Order: sequence, then C-alpha cells, then structure tokens
Amino acid sequence: MASPEIEELTQALSRLPGLGPRSARRAVLHLLKKRESALEPLLRALDAVNERLVTCSLCGNVDTVDPCGICADPRRDARALCVVEDVADLWALDKSRLFPGRFHVLGGRLSALEGVRPEDLSIDALVARVEAGGIDEVVLAMNATLEGQTTAHYLAERLERFPVRLTQLAHGVPVGGELDYLDEGTLAQALRARRPLG
Amino acid sequence: MASPEIEELTQALSRLPGLGPRSARRAVLHLLKKRESALEPLLRALDAVNERLVTCSLCGNVDTVDPCGICADPRRDARALCVVEDVADLWALDKSRLFPGRFHVLGGRLSALEGVRPEDLSIDALVARVEAGGIDEVVLAMNATLEGQTTAHYLAERLERFPVRLTQLAHGVPVGGELDYLDEGTLAQALRARRPLG
Ligand SMILES: [Zn+2]
Ligand SMILES: [Zn+2]
Repeated sequence: MASPEIEELTQALSRLPGLGPRSARRAVLHLLKKRESALEPLLRALDAVNERLVTCSLCGNVDTVDPCGICADPRRDARALCVVEDVADLWALDKSRLFPGRFHVLGGRLSALEGVRPEDLSIDALVARVEAGGIDEVVLAMNATLEGQTTAHYLAERLERFPVRLTQLAHGVPVGGELDYLDEGTLAQALRARRPLG
Repeated sequence: MASPEIEELTQALSRLPGLGPRSARRAVLHLLKKRESALEPLLRALDAVNERLVTCSLCGNVDTVDPCGICADPRRDARALCVVEDVADLWALDKSRLFPGRFHVLGGRLSALEGVRPEDLSIDALVARVEAGGIDEVVLAMNATLEGQTTAHYLAERLERFPVRLTQLAHGVPVGGELDYLDEGTLAQALRARRPLG
C-alpha cells in the first residue's frame, strides 16, 4: 500500500481535468522517479503561481500585478472591450496582439445544467465598466457553444441600453468549438470579420 | 499572453505522463480558478511527498522511513522476495497483503529501445540480497511484456547459481498487460498459481 502522502498527491492530481485516478497514479510514480527533474520543478512552479499571481480586479486576468499588464498598458485601446468566458480565452486572443483593446473575463458561462447563474459570473462588474463610459465597442467573444451563445445573448440584453456597439466573433469559429483550442489563423480571421450582434 | 509563472507551470505539468500541452493548460486554468480547493491542496501534497518521502535503501520502495515499513515489518516472511519493475507494481501487489514476503524494486526493465541496461537497474543490489542468504524463493514479477520477460530471463541467469527457487506469476496476467492496471482478483490468482521459471 502506498503511503498517505502518496495517496493525497494521487487524489490531488486526479482531480485535475484530463487526469483520472489511473493516470494520476502514473504521474505520481513519474514524479517519485524524477524528483529533481520533475517533482521539484513542478513544486517550484506551483509555488510561484500561488505566491505571485493575483487576479486583476478590473478585468479578471491573472498576472503578477493588479491591475494586470493589459489593463495598465496605455498603448491599449481603451475604447474596445473584449468579453471572454475564461482566462485561457484571453490568453488565446492576446497572443500576437490579435485584439488591440482590453478584456473582461466572465469566469465561465451561464449553464442551466451546471447551475451557473448570472450572479455567479462577473457580469455586474462588466455592466459597471460599460456604464462608466469611454467604451465604444464590446466584443462578446463567447465560445461557439449553446451555453456560450446563450451567455452572449444575455449580455447583449444587459448592455443594450448603453451607447456601445455590440459585436461577436465572425462565423469561422467552428460550431461547438472552444476558443482556446483554435489556431491563431482561425482566431485572427474570426476577429477581423467580427460583426454586429443581431 | 500568459505570465512566465503560468508558462512554467504549464510546462512542468505537460511533462507528466498522460498530460499533453493542451490538457496541461486546462489543468493550469482549473488550478487558477480553484486556488483553495485545487491549487493549494496539490501544492501541500507535493510538498509533503518531497519533504517526507525517501527511497528504501534495501528494497527501493518509497516510504517516510528507511528501511521502509515492509522491510522493517517482522511479520513479513523474509524467505520470500518478490522482484518488481516499479514502485507502482509493489503497491499493486501489496494491496490486501497478497504477498506475505518482501520486495525488490528494479526501477524499470531492460530495454534495447530505450537504452536501459542492467547497470541502470537495481540488479546488483538484488544479487547481493540473494547472495547474502536467508531467501528461499524469488518471485520474478515483471510485467507480461516482451521487455518485462526479457528482464525476468536475464535475472534468472544472474540468480541461477544461488540455492533459491525462482518463480514467476502464473499466466493469467494478460499478454502485454501492466501489473498495476490489473484488478486485485486477477493479481491474486496469478500470484497463487505462480510456477517455477522454465
Ligand atoms: Zn486586467
Ligand atoms: Zn524496503
């Protein structure tokens, strides 16, 4: 029988998406065999993330500073705001500076199935940002899933009373596709051909 | 673009068996969203493993003490020694006390393809344990793979000059099967019906 330390590590790893109990056990074995080249780097990397990273209080991005580098960057176009479900979507869109503006991370999508309601997402904060003014365009860059599109329509209703142009990513994002799985070319095209929501 | 801390964590996770770069990124996102319920427990579990666990200098098992709990247990039958490839195989065989004796972990298997030679495994230490006497039976519990069986035959040659009975797990372990993927019943049967190596 493995020691309690190993059981705890196996359990902590098996709760990660993509790792079941079996592969978690294999991962633990790997970490034990390669302590210097695998376990210690992972430990240091986790510790650095835990110690240094904070969530940006303006946009929900994760960075070493608050406000984050994007929110604090004066070269960014403050008039354009791109709303995404998750931080990973922000990273995907921010690669190679595809989008010149700023971001707003919702922290998920509305989902009746998973019981995710508007108040579980960073929606009031988004409305407040738009209400504060200075924004011309809000790109609703939700995933092209049913739940993503439901969320986009809900946001459109919440934002329609403000003088901003609401756009969404062009079709080109495959139906059912998740943004952070797309290559940069597809993302760039979808963003370039973005159109008014309607 | 994600911060360097996130890139490092993604890389450290993507080097685990079973996690590619994509799923490593998803795992990082999950850890960032669930800092208290996922990141911090994982960090603590890794730290505990790193701080507390040592490799047993007698058998190669991983435990909080050296010699390990199995080697130090006087109720264990010192006359029976079960040789396994990896610590995970030891854990699998040690569940419910299937094997009453002690273990010897090789740390892998001979592999021409991966360049694993006898001196890369804990084979000299095994020979020394057998040579020291007091052992009646050595179970060569390698995986039922080509490389596992090659390793078993190599060990049989190295050990044939000693007055010990060499046995192997009964057929019942599926060809190509890895021990730590088997259910306990199959393992118990294979162990019960173990037979002389021939
Ligand atoms: Zn920010
Ligand atoms: Zn031991």
